[in-house]
Amino acid sequence: MVGSPRPGKVMSTNASQLERLTFFSDAVFAIAITLLIIEVHVPHLETRDDQAYWLALHALQPSFMGFVLSFLVIGALWVAHHRVFGMLDDYSPSIMWPNMLLLMVVAFMPFATALMSSNALARVPELFYASTLLVAGLLQRLLFARALQAPFVKPGISPEDVAATRWRSLGLPTAAAMSLVAAWFVPGWNNFLLLGIPLLVRAYAGLGRRRALRLQAVPAAS
Amino acid sequence: MVGSPRPGKVMSTNASQLERLTFFSDAVFAIAITLLIIEVHVPHLETRDDQAYWLALHALQPSFMGFVLSFLVIGALWVAHHRVFGMLDDYSPSIMWPNMLLLMVVAFMPFATALMSSNALARVPELFYASTLLVAGLLQRLLFARALQAPFVKPGISPEDVAATRWRSLGLPTAAAMSLVAAWFVPGWNNFLLLGIPLLVRAYAGLGRRRALRLQAVPAAS
Amino acid sequence: MVGSPRPGKVMSTNASQLERLTFFSDAVFAIAITLLIIEVHVPHLETRDDQAYWLALHALQPSFMGFVLSFLVIGALWVAHHRVFGMLDDYSPSIMWPNMLLLMVVAFMPFATALMSSNALARVPELFYASTLLVAGLLQRLLFARALQAPFVKPGISPEDVAATRWRSLGLPTAAAMSLVAAWFVPGWNNFLLLGIPLLVRAYAGLGRRRALRLQAVPAAS
Amino acid sequence: MVGSPRPGKVMSTNASQLERLTFFSDAVFAIAITLLIIEVHVPHLETRDDQAYWLALHALQPSFMGFVLSFLVIGALWVAHHRVFGMLDDYSPSIMWPNMLLLMVVAFMPFATALMSSNALARVPELFYASTLLVAGLLQRLLFARALQAPFVKPGISPEDVAATRWRSLGLPTAAAMSLVAAWFVPGWNNFLLLGIPLLVRAYAGLGRRRALRLQAVPAAS
Repeated sequence: MVGSPRPGKVMSTNASQLERLTFFSDAVFAIAITLLIIEVHVPHLETRDDQAYWLALHALQPSFMGFVLSFLVIGALWVAHHRVFGMLDDYSPSIMWPNMLLLMVVAFMPFATALMSSNALARVPELFYASTLLVAGLLQRLLFARALQAPFVKPGISPEDVAATRWRSLGLPTAAAMSLVAAWFVPGWNNFLLLGIPLLVRAYAGLGRRRALRLQAVPAAS
Repeated sequence: MVGSPRPGKVMSTNASQLERLTFFSDAVFAIAITLLIIEVHVPHLETRDDQAYWLALHALQPSFMGFVLSFLVIGALWVAHHRVFGMLDDYSPSIMWPNMLLLMVVAFMPFATALMSSNALARVPELFYASTLLVAGLLQRLLFARALQAPFVKPGISPEDVAATRWRSLGLPTAAAMSLVAAWFVPGWNNFLLLGIPLLVRAYAGLGRRRALRLQAVPAAS
Repeated sequence: MVGSPRPGKVMSTNASQLERLTFFSDAVFAIAITLLIIEVHVPHLETRDDQAYWLALHALQPSFMGFVLSFLVIGALWVAHHRVFGMLDDYSPSIMWPNMLLLMVVAFMPFATALMSSNALARVPELFYASTLLVAGLLQRLLFARALQAPFVKPGISPEDVAATRWRSLGLPTAAAMSLVAAWFVPGWNNFLLLGIPLLVRAYAGLGRRRALRLQAVPAAS
Repeated sequence: MVGSPRPGKVMSTNASQLERLTFFSDAVFAIAITLLIIEVHVPHLETRDDQAYWLALHALQPSFMGFVLSFLVIGALWVAHHRVFGMLDDYSPSIMWPNMLLLMVVAFMPFATALMSSNALARVPELFYASTLLVAGLLQRLLFARALQAPFVKPGISPEDVAATRWRSLGLPTAAAMSLVAAWFVPGWNNFLLLGIPLLVRAYAGLGRRRALRLQAVPAAS
């Protein structure tokens, strides 16, 4: 979507192909995130007084919460994808299929969400949802590790920024793994663990950054 | 989607990331606006004479009106987004999540529309629809206020244009708030208040522009 | 989606905004054309032998034909949009809402198609479908007439090419009007008239081109 | 989505129109691939114990496999489209409709997938699915043969790379034809033949490359 990514350099064929890969990914993220709503079914009532409507909306609460939760999860996956691909000006063909598999799990999210929402607090749907997030997190981790390699990262981005960005991506799989375990014992409530993702992500980023700076400081030791 | 946004300047990384954010937003707007139609259900008739078809189409009238109304509302939200982001050549990371939340409400519109359309003139669905618009309007207002800050606006855009654009965004929340109150008393008919949005928007834009010019004229007074 | 549209000229803000308008339109076209398939419902059979499947697929024939017809119609609308917007390097704000209304009718097509397909050869659904096409054709005609104005067309495009392109857009509304009349008498079969669109379009383009050349040749006469 | 495709050349109108064609195609691919999930229906259970959920998920296994299979097929079609269009910097109008027809078959995939998945191991749905793939493969072959012509390919791409890319596209139709025949005898199991596509594609690419090199080596003989 850009002209020259930096002064004095015209966009190479690879950069143009990277744009299109980014674009296709964006479109899948956008469609999956918007399709979440079609799994929230409009209630059809027998009696049509105000009371009945409030009850019907109240009964939809798990669906609303599932919609919001999955919207935030897919939104966060997109924000991370946006951050990482914004640091690249080239790509290895080896990221093509990890990216496609990540998109497959993202496209699968509306199903996992609807299964969970229409069976609130049931153990198996919660395990299924948490597992889906875990797979998404692991694929994202694999994708970012492959993408953020030396020859593909834009010049001018510091090694510690790259390290921090790589480490951040441990946040989602960690939280998803914890949520998966908790789903067995407190199905439904386990999702509150996902609220910790922003904290986890920040902690991991700090760890990765400090580690990269330490490695730079003592090059002889590495 | 552009080359250099102005003469003699190549696109920075930030501008390129802004393009992708814009693109993702466009895609969500486009999907939500097109998904509205899948909530208009094709009638299945027992008798298949012309009379029965006309009656069936007549019974769908609230769905058609809901489709048109929400198409225009989402269309107007997109046009405003298009106008505001066209004035930027950089962005603060602080707009990322207000934008995502606005997109969440836009993605939610097909549900709110279907709830209202399949229960024509009922109070609770109308309150629900008007509330959804109000939340969309307030988030849009917040987003535009954060986006249209000094360092991010393209040079060459006058302060009074920026002020007018910021004030415009008061139109939707004002109309939605009035529609919400009216939904209690005249459910269904309250939506006609939304027809006033173009007028409200123009009035607010004029107010904002005049205020900005007054502030420029008497800088000592401010 | 482009760099500089012609040598020695950087992309203006308007051109960049035109790109985004084009992009949003493309997305709506793409979503509407792809949503057509979700109105073709998978049959659920009681007996599962080969015979039953062939019969079930045979019963779906109107749905398949509706899918193909509407795919070609929306495809042709997109191809025309692609041709016209490719001739522009700027736009008047007055095309914003005609474009939005055209997109509204395009987004409505899956409903009109499903209504027609699930009631094969019935008069009212055929009238409804032909009317939808007629409205789409008239809006497209209005949009292209406004878009292809002197200051917005790329330099280097001849007046007779512009005239031919404007006249082409009479093809769809002409065919749709004929199909609407024929739907009353031979519902279902009227759609075969739409096969004449390519011929009509070519004839109109020739007429427009010749007329433009004649006007140029005898400037004193006009 | 790019600036100048190569040094010292500004993007022509044709290149910009090619970008938009690519973009529209990407959007249809992305929507079709994501819509696959809405044909996987969330089970509604009578008894809600863990056992019942595991059984319900187990019963969905054909739907999950259909989702994964079609996701990979559409993904592979997109990757091939991405590769071929990345080799072009101009296009013949004669590719417009083959591309549109390929997109039509891609948009049709969610239906063919759902028909197959909801009737696991039945002969007719498997024949139908394999036929859809065969048509997609033949259209893709036709499209790529027309697109990869001398004046449209980017300079600097060797004739043997072009030949290899053209030959690759024989992989899908070959595998689909074999799968179609096998569907008659071992419905369901025939899909395992599709796993051979990566091998077939590589073999064809090698054949095409060697043939092109041989033709270059003995120009007098041709």
